[in-house]
Amino acid sequence: MAAEVSNTQIIFNNYIRKYAKEADMILKTSTMKLKVPEDCSDAVLVKNLYLSCDPYMRNRMNKIGAANDYVTSFTPAEPIIGIGVAKVVDSSNHNFKKDELIWGMTGWEEYSLIKSTQSLFKIEHTDVPLSYYTGILGMPGLAAYVGFYEISCPRKGETVFISAACGAVGQLVGQFAKLLGCYVVGSAGTKYKVDLLRSKFGFDDAFNYKDESNLNAALKRYFPEGIDIYLDNVGGEMLDAAILNMKLNGRISLCGMISQYNQQHREGVRNMFNVVAKQIRMQGFVVFLYYSLYPKFLDFMLPLIRQGKIEYVEDIADGLESAPAALIGIFSGRNVGKQVVRVAHE
Amino acid sequence: MAAEVSNTQIIFNNYIRKYAKEADMILKTSTMKLKVPEDCSDAVLVKNLYLSCDPYMRNRMNKIGAANDYVTSFTPAEPIIGIGVAKVVDSSNHNFKKDELIWGMTGWEEYSLIKSTQSLFKIEHTDVPLSYYTGILGMPGLAAYVGFYEISCPRKGETVFISAACGAVGQLVGQFAKLLGCYVVGSAGTKYKVDLLRSKFGFDDAFNYKDESNLNAALKRYFPEGIDIYLDNVGGEMLDAAILNMKLNGRISLCGMISQYNQQHREGVRNMFNVVAKQIRMQGFVVFLYYSLYPKFLDFMLPLIRQGKIEYVEDIADGLESAPAALIGIFSGRNVGKQVVRVAHE
Repeated sequence: MAAEVSNTQIIFNNYIRKYAKEADMILKTSTMKLKVPEDCSDAVLVKNLYLSCDPYMRNRMNKIGAANDYVTSFTPAEPIIGIGVAKVVDSSNHNFKKDELIWGMTGWEEYSLIKSTQSLFKIEHTDVPLSYYTGILGMPGLAAYVGFYEISCPRKGETVFISAACGAVGQLVGQFAKLLGCYVVGSAGTKYKVDLLRSKFGFDDAFNYKDESNLNAALKRYFPEGIDIYLDNVGGEMLDAAILNMKLNGRISLCGMISQYNQQHREGVRNMFNVVAKQIRMQGFVVFLYYSLYPKFLDFMLPLIRQGKIEYVEDIADGLESAPAALIGIFSGRNVGKQVVRVAHE
Repeated sequence: MAAEVSNTQIIFNNYIRKYAKEADMILKTSTMKLKVPEDCSDAVLVKNLYLSCDPYMRNRMNKIGAANDYVTSFTPAEPIIGIGVAKVVDSSNHNFKKDELIWGMTGWEEYSLIKSTQSLFKIEHTDVPLSYYTGILGMPGLAAYVGFYEISCPRKGETVFISAACGAVGQLVGQFAKLLGCYVVGSAGTKYKVDLLRSKFGFDDAFNYKDESNLNAALKRYFPEGIDIYLDNVGGEMLDAAILNMKLNGRISLCGMISQYNQQHREGVRNMFNVVAKQIRMQGFVVFLYYSLYPKFLDFMLPLIRQGKIEYVEDIADGLESAPAALIGIFSGRNVGKQVVRVAHE
């Protein structure tokens, strides 16, 4: 007979239209048998260790029509779903064995039964912190890698601007660009983050966008000759200002638009004609569609971490009960670095 | 002693900010000696035969700051400048001889002294109408070629949408796409043009955007499965609607934004998040930067014309005095096909 354990969960209350708030997620405790049910073939039952708070999750709180977005909605009255690091407790899937570590889509709860295991990655390297697989060695790391190397066609000496530059993706792109020999400036929303960008992450310069009454003027100050590459994590006003400041043949990689996710009516980008006149390429990308590059990315990233060539800052909230506040916090920029929730120690 | 002739000119009155009107161009007659002045080396004096009315010319009527646009302003009290077909009358440039035909940047006047000859092309093939070198065999033809083959990465069987589809660029892109085996729909602003698209140019379908209260719904009707390639000639609302209807990995080639040129405040594009979510690539391009491809383009295009495989419609206004009205007309879509002004018969 399998042990029955208490299983605390973060339940998605209902679809929302504007600002996400903690009350949209409800703490609930039920019980669970630590065994994959008989009728579930190819499933794994995991103990969740770390959960990842990512901007795209806000979109899953909307009621999304079929094929209108790259993600589907959360299901009301079911746990929030997100990327996490977990340990296999039981398995009916021959690819995963008890006590193995994985990262991938799991539930916001202590234990999850994962029926669709196609996007789970086995964690083979444990000489780095396990939480890294929610960030620098996980989806955001791959997003930074794809957004910079695959999408932006960077060349040594080019000028690179990164918004939300202290975030999980931004801090990595900035360091990739510095490793290549680019001039790199980032924007962030607090003085502390701006200092981090300059000191810890080695950006050439950084500014607090909240201190700037005119983003166009701010970008002109840092890029008097213009921007070759813009890695956009925010959209809206900043994207509009960046378009104005791109060089001829500039490249804008659209990684996400966190400034827009809580808004019912998205801001218009007014400077599109400059995309014609300056022959700019704007490329949106969805990291989930690049998962096949993960092994290549891991081969690239692990040595950089082991050799201390890349800095990484994460913001770890303790306990599943802190998860709703942690997720809400990323939309006001309360986190410093990658926001993670520790559910349990291994 | 060189002959002195009367030289009627279309003079640019002054910078404008909103709608261009005929009164912004003034007819003036002066005299001119039919000889390149002694102090002008490497210049040509030409008799203009055909002048081209192109949307980008509206931008040259604005006061443009340095490096803010891909073109410079017209000079007030000087003739309008544009692409034309002309015959060399006198030359101090060893590349061009008397009686040779050229196309390139010339003045809106009967005779022009062209001091910068770098972007003049010699016309070698005269078995096609000379006016074609303002369109199908000139800059708009090259724009259609670059916008489709170089920028849009088209594949057989893909779905292609073209706005301002009856224009010089649109009608050619549509036919290129049909030759490749794509499904092609175009939009235009009159029933007559819509009929032309279906009958003469062989588009699979076409619609009058002025009859549609909801452009998003219109595009959904013609592209229930979505659009692979959008060749945007108009910008604004149509671009916003197209973004909503692109398929995953769709490509938008931004060729021009005629709907925006007469507006002081350009419309915002609100659906940019879909560019992320659908992994869309938007690429602006400036045909002047692709002039090196002209010989390759000519080798491609001339046989298609000679074999009758491409239809081409031009709208020829007669006489230099009709040029201001012809140029203003393209912004309200009064022209059917490529708008040309015949200044003189060869």
